[in-house]
Amino acid sequence: MQSKLRPAPEISVQQWFNTKTPLSLAQLRGKVVVIEAFQMLCPGCVSHGLPQATRVYETFPQQQVQVIGLHTVFEHHSAMTPTALEAFLHEYRIRFPVGVDTPGAHSAIPETMGRYQLRGTPSIILIDQQGRLRKQHFGMEQDLRLGAEIMTLLNEASMPGLAEHNAQSVSTSQNCDEQGCAI
Amino acid sequence: MQSKLRPAPEISVQQWFNTKTPLSLAQLRGKVVVIEAFQMLCPGCVSHGLPQATRVYETFPQQQVQVIGLHTVFEHHSAMTPTALEAFLHEYRIRFPVGVDTPGAHSAIPETMGRYQLRGTPSIILIDQQGRLRKQHFGMEQDLRLGAEIMTLLNEASMPGLAEHNAQSVSTSQNCDEQGCAI
Amino acid sequence: MQSKLRPAPEISVQQWFNTKTPLSLAQLRGKVVVIEAFQMLCPGCVSHGLPQATRVYETFPQQQVQVIGLHTVFEHHSAMTPTALEAFLHEYRIRFPVGVDTPGAHSAIPETMGRYQLRGTPSIILIDQQGRLRKQHFGMEQDLRLGAEIMTLLNEASMPGLAEHNAQSVSTSQNCDEQGCAI
Amino acid sequence: MQSKLRPAPEISVQQWFNTKTPLSLAQLRGKVVVIEAFQMLCPGCVSHGLPQATRVYETFPQQQVQVIGLHTVFEHHSAMTPTALEAFLHEYRIRFPVGVDTPGAHSAIPETMGRYQLRGTPSIILIDQQGRLRKQHFGMEQDLRLGAEIMTLLNEASMPGLAEHNAQSVSTSQNCDEQGCAI
Repeated sequence: MQSKLRPAPEISVQQWFNTKTPLSLAQLRGKVVVIEAFQMLCPGCVSHGLPQATRVYETFPQQQVQVIGLHTVFEHHSAMTPTALEAFLHEYRIRFPVGVDTPGAHSAIPETMGRYQLRGTPSIILIDQQGRLRKQHFGMEQDLRLGAEIMTLLNEASMPGLAEHNAQSVSTSQNCDEQGCAI
Repeated sequence: MQSKLRPAPEISVQQWFNTKTPLSLAQLRGKVVVIEAFQMLCPGCVSHGLPQATRVYETFPQQQVQVIGLHTVFEHHSAMTPTALEAFLHEYRIRFPVGVDTPGAHSAIPETMGRYQLRGTPSIILIDQQGRLRKQHFGMEQDLRLGAEIMTLLNEASMPGLAEHNAQSVSTSQNCDEQGCAI
Repeated sequence: MQSKLRPAPEISVQQWFNTKTPLSLAQLRGKVVVIEAFQMLCPGCVSHGLPQATRVYETFPQQQVQVIGLHTVFEHHSAMTPTALEAFLHEYRIRFPVGVDTPGAHSAIPETMGRYQLRGTPSIILIDQQGRLRKQHFGMEQDLRLGAEIMTLLNEASMPGLAEHNAQSVSTSQNCDEQGCAI
Repeated sequence: MQSKLRPAPEISVQQWFNTKTPLSLAQLRGKVVVIEAFQMLCPGCVSHGLPQATRVYETFPQQQVQVIGLHTVFEHHSAMTPTALEAFLHEYRIRFPVGVDTPGAHSAIPETMGRYQLRGTPSIILIDQQGRLRKQHFGMEQDLRLGAEIMTLLNEASMPGLAEHNAQSVSTSQNCDEQGCAI
């Protein structure tokens, strides 16, 4: 019953990195959007969440899947400033657009985090091509499941997807020495 | 141009483990089939290929995705006997059906491996619901990409897929202590 | 020719965490000292250097081996402030004493880092019980080698070391299920 | 009270690999001996025990530390034959000497395993330069602790050990890109 799906709340970003122009969900209709909500001093974000977001960024075509990092600071605000975040993104070589979630006016919870009622970081959010919220998950998610879910959202649209592409090619590994036993 | 896709060669299996009845591709029409070709003494199969196949087995519904291990012994034949394989499957707790590729009559290469012209082990093979070969890959494959490819094949059919299911639920993590920072 | 060994330069620390009283090498004679020089936004420090220092801290008796974290900020100074470090230590659960290397008066390189001429972070420094510099290593070091080197310095002294202790006990694993095959 | 230490039971080996001449503890006096008891189809041996033994083999001088793999088959005897072991050692690139523990005359437990009363595999055994049993551990052991223990046994002897060597050199990393932040 897809009619029950609710629109994803718009994101509220104070400052952007890795993008020349601000992003909004409204302007991303037609793309699948993957939001990685993180804090730069959250160990699980550094070890699992952000590397997974980078793999999504490198695996799917950017014309079809928009990866956004969202810095949802809800603790240690004086430590995780935009200045500190900029250094963090540089050192960890994060290439995809990252927005700083707008601080809450009357709360430690920033605005976007509040709208989505996220339980913490890392959280991953999937938004379909029509701008509807399809998944939000706190903690670790398996790559295998996440890849499947993103592809489901890609395949819903009229755009060609990856199916055609994959059908044509029988891919092979270039570097096999440590991975397999060549004949 | 999916009309150019060729039917996947039938598998030839000498002996089965973890299944009461022999499997054939012919009888698996309507399911996506994932074949993990491996050798029990191949390090890359043990460290990467088989754990990945297990994750596929545990992630996708077995009514929709059939995982098959194929023991394609092309070297050290006297070491990797069916008896040794049975002990290996027990110790490594492999639960999905595993077939022993029929030894070649005039070659070190077993029959199914020859039909698919596999380059070595581990190799992963994807077959769509119409029994057509859609991918074969020697070496390591990323989980994110593999999950996406399996879902593409699942979404081609008229069966509901996981999209509906995912749409209903906003999943959350039960165990977050080491993974994230709860509010 | 141990006569050629030079005294380790004293550390210069602006602010301490995880210790009630400031530490100095002068007061640590009789102990082996392991200094982990790190920056909180250095990926290799987070993934390898600091976890290794924690393992040293947990493996060797604190009466015999003093682990010190030294925050040697030589870049992104405005991001890696003592306030940010305090949050980092809390989130990453670093328990051993950590000192902030005193900023350089005329250089981006802090004082202690300059005295040791460290090449970068992470670096590990070993100081023997007589206060002499015995090793400094930039980058990853193997645990096996590091454990051996620390023990060499411990065994130089008249204190009993771990040899006696180990000799008495035949240690056994408490949790074996995933590690081994019990009879 | 080292006088209470008992002599390590002699090993009983049916067949050797990776050595031209059979080894015995009697002939290894003056060396520290590290025995890795394993089974080729034991997952913990493959993932942890044997890689650790290889690291010991590569870290310590072979004139001072003798690493021995001992294939202590106590289950699946028909699968883990010497022929199968030979293929295993080849595929996993095990370079140090490996002996097949002599099958028990009236027991599933092989002879050496019985003499040491090992609880299972992997187990690691340390024998000092005087041939005395100093440690046996079932399951995983930390590299840091193992390195320290081996060095303790090395330092008991009159031979120079690694202390002198380390004292002379200030080692540095050759490959730092992914590990650290060079100045």
